[in-house]
Amino acid sequence: MRLPLPALADQFLLRPDMAFLNHGSYGACPQPVFATYQRWQRELEAQPVEFLGRRISGLLAEARASLGAYVGASGDDLAFVPNATHGINLVARSLALAPGDEVLGTDHEYGAVERTWRHLCGLSGARYIAQPIALPMTDAEAVVDQLWAGVTPRTRVIVVSHISSPTALTFPVAAICRRAREAGILSVIDGAHAPGQIDLDMAALGADFYTGNCHKWLCAPKGAGFLYARPELQPLLRPLVVSWGYESLSPGVSPFVDYFEWIGTADPAAYLSVPAAIAFQAANSWPAVRAACRELLAEARDRVRALSGEPEICPDSADWWVQMAALPLPPCNPAALKARLWDEHLVEAPIVMWGGRQFIRVSVQAYNSPSDIDRLVAALEALLPECAA
Amino acid sequence: MRLPLPALADQFLLRPDMAFLNHGSYGACPQPVFATYQRWQRELEAQPVEFLGRRISGLLAEARASLGAYVGASGDDLAFVPNATHGINLVARSLALAPGDEVLGTDHEYGAVERTWRHLCGLSGARYIAQPIALPMTDAEAVVDQLWAGVTPRTRVIVVSHISSPTALTFPVAAICRRAREAGILSVIDGAHAPGQIDLDMAALGADFYTGNCHKWLCAPKGAGFLYARPELQPLLRPLVVSWGYESLSPGVSPFVDYFEWIGTADPAAYLSVPAAIAFQAANSWPAVRAACRELLAEARDRVRALSGEPEICPDSADWWVQMAALPLPPCNPAALKARLWDEHLVEAPIVMWGGRQFIRVSVQAYNSPSDIDRLVAALEALLPECAA
Repeated sequence: MRLPLPALADQFLLRPDMAFLNHGSYGACPQPVFATYQRWQRELEAQPVEFLGRRISGLLAEARASLGAYVGASGDDLAFVPNATHGINLVARSLALAPGDEVLGTDHEYGAVERTWRHLCGLSGARYIAQPIALPMTDAEAVVDQLWAGVTPRTRVIVVSHISSPTALTFPVAAICRRAREAGILSVIDGAHAPGQIDLDMAALGADFYTGNCHKWLCAPKGAGFLYARPELQPLLRPLVVSWGYESLSPGVSPFVDYFEWIGTADPAAYLSVPAAIAFQAANSWPAVRAACRELLAEARDRVRALSGEPEICPDSADWWVQMAALPLPPCNPAALKARLWDEHLVEAPIVMWGGRQFIRVSVQAYNSPSDIDRLVAALEALLPECAA
Repeated sequence: MRLPLPALADQFLLRPDMAFLNHGSYGACPQPVFATYQRWQRELEAQPVEFLGRRISGLLAEARASLGAYVGASGDDLAFVPNATHGINLVARSLALAPGDEVLGTDHEYGAVERTWRHLCGLSGARYIAQPIALPMTDAEAVVDQLWAGVTPRTRVIVVSHISSPTALTFPVAAICRRAREAGILSVIDGAHAPGQIDLDMAALGADFYTGNCHKWLCAPKGAGFLYARPELQPLLRPLVVSWGYESLSPGVSPFVDYFEWIGTADPAAYLSVPAAIAFQAANSWPAVRAACRELLAEARDRVRALSGEPEICPDSADWWVQMAALPLPPCNPAALKARLWDEHLVEAPIVMWGGRQFIRVSVQAYNSPSDIDRLVAALEALLPECAA
C-alpha cells in the first residue's frame, strides 16, 4: 500500500487546497467517525434525561471497554478525560507532593505538562526537574541512563512523554517504567501522541499512570482522551472536578470510575465515538496505512535534509518515529517561516524551537500524498534562504 | 402569547411522543442553535490548526462579549467553563481555605456543589455548613436573616444558589451579596438555573464570583457554562487545569482569560454557539415566551395541589419561581413514582426528596403545551395512590 490512498483521503473533512502536515497538533477526524459523533449529539437532544441520566453509564462503560481492548487494559481501569493535559493535571493534583519531593521529567516534555508540574510543585514546595536528554538520540539505554542521572533519593515521580511533542521522538517508556518501579518511583506517561501511532499494551508497558489522546492519531473527535491507572494506585487519585461521583449515592464499579466519569453536564459524544474511530482504523488496514505514511515521511525527511544540510536527531527507524518527525532546519526566523509557509504556500506545519535549534515537525496521515511533500519541499526551498537568521 | 407555540415547539429536537417536563436538568437546544453548533464543528474539522491555533482566541472573545452584554458584564470578566459545577470547583479550589475557615451554604444547594465544598474543606481543615432555610419561603428578608444566623467571625465564603436545584426557588442573592460584602465575606453564586430564566446583571447583583449554565434555560448546546469574577478578585483565581495559559508565552488581556480560555484540545463549539442561543431567544420574544411558560406552570401547580392537598412552599409570584417549580407531593415511593411516570405515561419529571418531603419538579419551556400538563396530572392522579408510602 502506498500513499495517496484516495479512498481514505476523500473521507477526511479537511479542506482540499492545502498541504496539511500537522496532524500532530489536533488530529483530524474521518467522515464516518464524525458522522457517528454528530449522530450521538442528535440522539442526546431527542431525550436528554434518558441519555444523560439513565443510559450514559452503560454507554461510557461500553466505550471504555472498546478502548481498553485497544490499549491492553480493562475498561474499568480507564477514565475518559477531555485530553492528556487534563489527565496529567488530574494525576499531578492527586499526588499530594510534599516539600522537598522531586518530580523528574525531561527537557522534551510538552509545555502545558511542564507548566502543570511547575505550578503544583510551586504550591507544595516540591521541585520539577527537566533532565536534559541530548540529541541525537541513537540508543534507548543511553536515554534511560541520561534520565537516571537526574534521579535522587527525593525523586517521587518520573513523568516522560511516550512520543515527545517538540522533538517527535519515541521514548523507551517500558524500560523507564520498569526501572522506576524497582526504585519505588511513580511513573506518569504522557501518551498524547501515542494511541493510533504505535501499538499500546498498558500491561506490558507497566506505567503507573498513562494518559493519552484519542483525537490525535486515533482520529476520534476533538476532546477525547483517557487516563489509565494501575488498579492498586487508583485509590491515590482524587477528583479534579468534584461532582456527584464523589460520595456517590449509587456507586459504580469503583470510586475511580465514579470520580471521573461524570463531572457536570457536558457533551459526551466525543467519548462515545472512540469505538467508531477504532473500528474505522481496523476496517482500513491501519498497520499498512501507518507503514505507507512512514515511508512518505522518510522521503520527506531525506529531501528536507538534502535542502538543509542539518544532521538528523535520530536514526531512520520505527523505534524512534512513525508518522511524525522533527526535521532540523538551518538557523531561521521561526515565526516568519511558519507564517509564510501557510500564507504563501498553504503548507500547515509547526516550526519548533528546541535546544537552540529549529525544526519543522512534519506529520503524515492517511489523507496525505506525495504532492503534499513536494509542496513542502518547494516551499522550504524558496523560504529558507529568505527566512535565514 | 399562550402556549403552545407551534412555531417554537417544532424547532426543538425532542422526541414528540413524550411530555418532557424536565428542562431543568440538562436543557434542550433548538434546531437553529444546534445547527450552528454542528456547523462550528465541521468548520473546525476543515482546518483544525487555523481554527484552534489561530482563530480561537478571537472567536471566544466575540462569544464572551456577546454573553457579557447578555449578563451585564464585560466579556473579559467572563470565562467559559463546561458547566456551573466546573465553575464552582475552580473558585473553591482557588480560595486556599485554611483550618478553621467556614464556608456557609444553605440546605438547598446542589449535590455536586455541596460535595465540592465538603471535599475541599476536608482537605484544608475548613468547615462547610449547610444552613437550614425553612419552607415555606414567603419573605426574602427572612431568608437572608436565616442564612445570617449561620455567619460567624470565621465565615470566609458564602455560597448560595440563585435558583435552587431541589426546591426550584429564587434566592435573594443581591441582598445576600450586599450583606456579605459589608461583612468582608466572599460571595459565590451558583447560577446553574438562572441565565435565560431570569434577567441577569452582574453589576447590579454584586456577586464576587458567579457561575452559570448556558445549556439549561438559555438553550445553548450542552457543556456551555461561564464563570464571572469581579475584576479585583480575578487575581485570586488559579487554574484548575493548568495549560499553556499559565505563564503564557503570548499573554492576552489578563491571566484570568489566559488561565481558563484554553485547557487542552477540546471542541469549543458549545461556547461559540452561545451567541446563537442568545439571538434565538431575542428573535422569539423571549420575555413573552417566559410569561406564557409561567402561566402554564401556574396552572400545573394549582392542579397538582388540588390532587395532593399539600401546602405550597412559596407564594405564586415571579419573585420566587418562573419556569421551574417544586410541587409538593404526599408521601410516596419516589423511585417507583419516577419510573412509572416515564414507563407508563412518558412523562419526564424528577421526583425530589428534600427535608423529609417529596416534590415533583416541573419545568415548562417553549416547547411544552397544555396537553403535557394534562398528561402529568392524569399520570399523578393514577399513580399517587398506587405509589403512596
